[in-house]
Amino acid sequence: MSDIDTLAINCIRVLAADTVRKADSGHPGAPLGMAPAAHVLFSNMKFNPQDPEWTNRDRFVLSNGHAVALQYVMLHFLGYDLTLDDLKSFRQLGSKTPGHPERETPGVEVTTGPLGQGISNAVGLAIAQANIAATYNKPDFTISDNYTYSFFGDGCMMEGVSHEACSLAGHLKLGNLIAFYDDNKISIDGNTALEFDEDVAKRLQAYGWEVIDVPNADTDVAAISSALQKAKQTKDKPTCIQIHTTIGYGSVNAGTASVHGSPLKPEDIAQLKKKFGFDPKKFFAVPQQVYDYYHKVSAAGAKAEKEWKSLFASYKKAYPKEAAEYERRQSGKLPEGWEKLLPSYTPADPATATRKLSETVLSDLVAGIPEIIGGSADLTPSNLTRWKNAVDFQPPQSGLGEYSGRYIRYGVREFGMGAIMNGISAYGMNLKAYGGTFLNFVSYAAGAVRLSALSGLPVIWVATHDSIGLGEDGPTHQPIETLAHFRALPNLMVWRPADGNEVSAAYKVSLESDRTPSIIALTRQGLPELKGSSVEKASKGGYVLQDPSSTAKLIIVATGSEVSLSVKAAELLEKRGIPTRVVSLPDFFSFDHQSLEYKKSVLPDGVPIMSVEVLTTFGWSKYSHSHFGLDRFGASGKANDIFNKFEFTPEGVAKRGAATVGFFKGSKLLSPLDQPFTSIQ
Amino acid sequence: MSDIDTLAINCIRVLAADTVRKADSGHPGAPLGMAPAAHVLFSNMKFNPQDPEWTNRDRFVLSNGHAVALQYVMLHFLGYDLTLDDLKSFRQLGSKTPGHPERETPGVEVTTGPLGQGISNAVGLAIAQANIAATYNKPDFTISDNYTYSFFGDGCMMEGVSHEACSLAGHLKLGNLIAFYDDNKISIDGNTALEFDEDVAKRLQAYGWEVIDVPNADTDVAAISSALQKAKQTKDKPTCIQIHTTIGYGSVNAGTASVHGSPLKPEDIAQLKKKFGFDPKKFFAVPQQVYDYYHKVSAAGAKAEKEWKSLFASYKKAYPKEAAEYERRQSGKLPEGWEKLLPSYTPADPATATRKLSETVLSDLVAGIPEIIGGSADLTPSNLTRWKNAVDFQPPQSGLGEYSGRYIRYGVREFGMGAIMNGISAYGMNLKAYGGTFLNFVSYAAGAVRLSALSGLPVIWVATHDSIGLGEDGPTHQPIETLAHFRALPNLMVWRPADGNEVSAAYKVSLESDRTPSIIALTRQGLPELKGSSVEKASKGGYVLQDPSSTAKLIIVATGSEVSLSVKAAELLEKRGIPTRVVSLPDFFSFDHQSLEYKKSVLPDGVPIMSVEVLTTFGWSKYSHSHFGLDRFGASGKANDIFNKFEFTPEGVAKRGAATVGFFKGSKLLSPLDQPFTSIQ
Repeated sequence: MSDIDTLAINCIRVLAADTVRKADSGHPGAPLGMAPAAHVLFSNMKFNPQDPEWTNRDRFVLSNGHAVALQYVMLHFLGYDLTLDDLKSFRQLGSKTPGHPERETPGVEVTTGPLGQGISNAVGLAIAQANIAATYNKPDFTISDNYTYSFFGDGCMMEGVSHEACSLAGHLKLGNLIAFYDDNKISIDGNTALEFDEDVAKRLQAYGWEVIDVPNADTDVAAISSALQKAKQTKDKPTCIQIHTTIGYGSVNAGTASVHGSPLKPEDIAQLKKKFGFDPKKFFAVPQQVYDYYHKVSAAGAKAEKEWKSLFASYKKAYPKEAAEYERRQSGKLPEGWEKLLPSYTPADPATATRKLSETVLSDLVAGIPEIIGGSADLTPSNLTRWKNAVDFQPPQSGLGEYSGRYIRYGVREFGMGAIMNGISAYGMNLKAYGGTFLNFVSYAAGAVRLSALSGLPVIWVATHDSIGLGEDGPTHQPIETLAHFRALPNLMVWRPADGNEVSAAYKVSLESDRTPSIIALTRQGLPELKGSSVEKASKGGYVLQDPSSTAKLIIVATGSEVSLSVKAAELLEKRGIPTRVVSLPDFFSFDHQSLEYKKSVLPDGVPIMSVEVLTTFGWSKYSHSHFGLDRFGASGKANDIFNKFEFTPEGVAKRGAATVGFFKGSKLLSPLDQPFTSIQ
Repeated sequence: MSDIDTLAINCIRVLAADTVRKADSGHPGAPLGMAPAAHVLFSNMKFNPQDPEWTNRDRFVLSNGHAVALQYVMLHFLGYDLTLDDLKSFRQLGSKTPGHPERETPGVEVTTGPLGQGISNAVGLAIAQANIAATYNKPDFTISDNYTYSFFGDGCMMEGVSHEACSLAGHLKLGNLIAFYDDNKISIDGNTALEFDEDVAKRLQAYGWEVIDVPNADTDVAAISSALQKAKQTKDKPTCIQIHTTIGYGSVNAGTASVHGSPLKPEDIAQLKKKFGFDPKKFFAVPQQVYDYYHKVSAAGAKAEKEWKSLFASYKKAYPKEAAEYERRQSGKLPEGWEKLLPSYTPADPATATRKLSETVLSDLVAGIPEIIGGSADLTPSNLTRWKNAVDFQPPQSGLGEYSGRYIRYGVREFGMGAIMNGISAYGMNLKAYGGTFLNFVSYAAGAVRLSALSGLPVIWVATHDSIGLGEDGPTHQPIETLAHFRALPNLMVWRPADGNEVSAAYKVSLESDRTPSIIALTRQGLPELKGSSVEKASKGGYVLQDPSSTAKLIIVATGSEVSLSVKAAELLEKRGIPTRVVSLPDFFSFDHQSLEYKKSVLPDGVPIMSVEVLTTFGWSKYSHSHFGLDRFGASGKANDIFNKFEFTPEGVAKRGAATVGFFKGSKLLSPLDQPFTSIQ
């Protein structure tokens, strides 16, 4: 180990310890253990802190996100927009240095912390790179060749999502993915012998990964370097560099769980600094040589970007069409006039399942929007997510597809799919990732959906079989709570379109979204094309589908398959002297973002409002005074039999509509939209 | 293969094909392929169809639950209460034979279908058996020695939850667990080469499993039998019997995805019957020899139970105390007077975090209730789930614990933990399984929580760090949507206790529950013991904590840490001329089950009601007219700084309370509990 290596590594250690100590909160153990790996890796990565968005930069994902002090120290050393003062305000409200990595911090690619997801995001970033390279590289022009690197720990490996993503990465032979496994034998409960003694290397080899062992990564910088070089040469499989480290290396409690999640004591930091040749009385002290060293690394990255730009200029001359598309995608703009590709419908069109209408939209869009890349969690023939003549995203040597293919066979891996979509989306290049499964099984991926919403990654879930309407598969597959669950999540659209125009609207708004992901819930069963729907109206999230000839005495608000049902119920009610307005509310999120004036024009004061949706009523009281729904699990049987059993029939709805009008007769009803204050948003 | 083996196996095949055909819905492929394995396994299992609840029976879990026609056919043959007519009403509304296995059907141990969970339930069943055996067996008395068997397929192996559970099973060296992997190379999308080419055997070996290969399980009954015998001899690790089968064996499209999920065509069934020596014109025809054969198997099981009963009678004489406890647990009754173990508190007691109060309750209960078995997903020191002097559930040879230990080190495996808890609970013997993690990460296990609720398994989640009050870890760890998500799920209690008495109430109701699981959300930060709380009142789910001296002009309804906050706000409001009632609502589910009269005595007509909870407001309009909550993600910082930022302070609450009173002045307000009809329940 050269002097500067030693100095830099130990400086990472003491600065990370100071950072956590100052916050009086955080995780010093992994930064102390992984400092050598971080030093070697960042010394060899390609990036430019002056332009953190350069598309061909290497990506780094800290899957063991609690080790974030390590990442902040590195970003600071390398010259990202992160000062010593930012380190001093680690974990304080409003700082650039929150308790786990968040995408908003310059140099942080994805938001991590929830274990297992970072390494899965990394798989997505690697898929994106392989796709971009296969799409835009030309024999003389390597426009894209970046690597994706990740650090992960035992916690990540225990989580199921890491299994899903790593298994798929092996299948896909992603040679551009290199992950460091921090094998430190310690987790929060204590020694991993308590709970986790699987052979991780063997497991990853079973997935098709290369595994390189580094027995002493506390000090053996040469071994880490040589492993990294070897990994970069391995082009046909992902590589895991298994680094054996000592958690909390250098501290008095090194190698124990006590250094995992609490700041080191001041006297421990003092002895640590002394041991590593630093002045124990100085805090946040960085020798100039350390800055000089890392700034040289960054300067090499800046030079690499400059060379890349000049390469791209030549590429632009040789391949103007490809370059124009590349630049358009970099800008985040969809192709001019893409909305014209969206189909629209009239009531003359035949009744169709919305999953089928979704297939039509996707098929129409993929040709014109090259940044769409999608797949299904092994439900392609059910989700109808694959367009005609699609090419699978597969390693070319498999004979099953190409890396330029845009249809991903995710396998039965919903959570992995969600986290991989987040990685694809975070890559940039305007990539629009979608993934199909049954609505009920989006719940398997709840952790990934949450991170899409939290970190503003506009991925799209194609969630078919959206109610008891799926029939015979029964209650294990019929969603009840699912829409409420996801409607309760901030920054997430949850579409449940009622017909073809609403399906087009759902895709339109979802694809235009920069920061808000969406779930599009679709039926298995056929639905009529509605009179009164349009792409434009549905894009508002909620609108008046139809008004009665005289003043409405009742408003029914419904979504998806219950909208056409409500139209039929309104006919019955009209005959019984209850003129009824029908409101379609395909997406709460978009509707909530309309003006209060508009919203109250749809759901005004003075008229009883009844919701109709064949899932939980939970949350509907936000818009309605009475709520017809299913607050129990479903049943196995023919779809129509189940609808009849639960009285989701025109008569069942009309009966409850009449009861609602009777019950509230004489009350001066306020619209539930009337609120004295808004919650914190 | 003997003649009767051949006949029985082919009869399984044609009857399963008829069953799926008659339903015009279902999955014939796996039953055709796995018929030989089912025949061999059930011929060697120990059970008594006349007493499906016999505690020492072998358990069987169909993890690839879509193959349920196979299970129904076997149960029918073996003499369970499942007739040919039940098979004929497969997948029809109200039948005993729903589209996926449900616990309600006699002979079905756990509800499966959502992939990956069945094999994880099996791990839980095996843990339960090991615990019961280590607790009650004596040198001369083997009271418990049953095996747990499972079938699973590629879909299960792709799902992350199977990784979590199988990895833990390997660590725990569960020799009583034997699983058959249906390696048929086909999933819904087509050949598994498209998406899944990991080496499953190698992966399982990496976890510490034994793997036995059966190259031709379509016909080689002898090989399956010998693998099974070998597996039963392997006492120190779980065994996977990897059976290579042909999906849809015998049908014209055997070996392709087309036989997976659709009934075979009538002409295909005709040729199948012909090929197997059955009359193509006869449907649901079972030769008497087949019944005779399987009834002999069942008779052997009945005999085994009889012998076990006589063994137990002797055991009772030799070990009356243990036998009495065993019998009490069989009866499903908790020990007499156990409620007296629950601590209660007065306002004189010091402010304490509810996670700490939970630790006290658990510590008080475990000594008196031997059926409590719990753990944490590697957050023991944070969840405070481990009592003093607890013995870990570990393989004795590890030196880390005993199988009679009742504290499980689940590792960072939330979904696996959830599914394993379901298995433990389904074992019987009144086992009360609890598992700890952060509230936010219960979402990782959403699929398992759903199956607990659907199948009525009263497991308990100890969900600490229940809001932004966790502080510095930041928004990746702070729940927002979580309570709404789980409140929307039918048959689930979601407790958020406000003090010690409410913590005791939460455990009381959760442990008394026969069929309803619960999540108990607990704070990291300290909370005062409240004036007006009691175990009895809180057990109702909601109650008036305090009333003002004059008629209330406002009702604040709150949960958990926001109850004491609301008490302080009520003081401010009282001073400003707004006498305020404070309602604590620790569990929606229990409150909803009170009489309307009681509920309206808590939340009456005519007074504005404001909810206060520092998570999403979604769903609160069910009880309140205005809603103070957090409809955005949290932030990283000191807990108090975050509460201040979002105005969750006495003043912030009081301000909104006053605004609520002003806004609704002059309105004749109805309680949101007033409803013209109830939803379907």
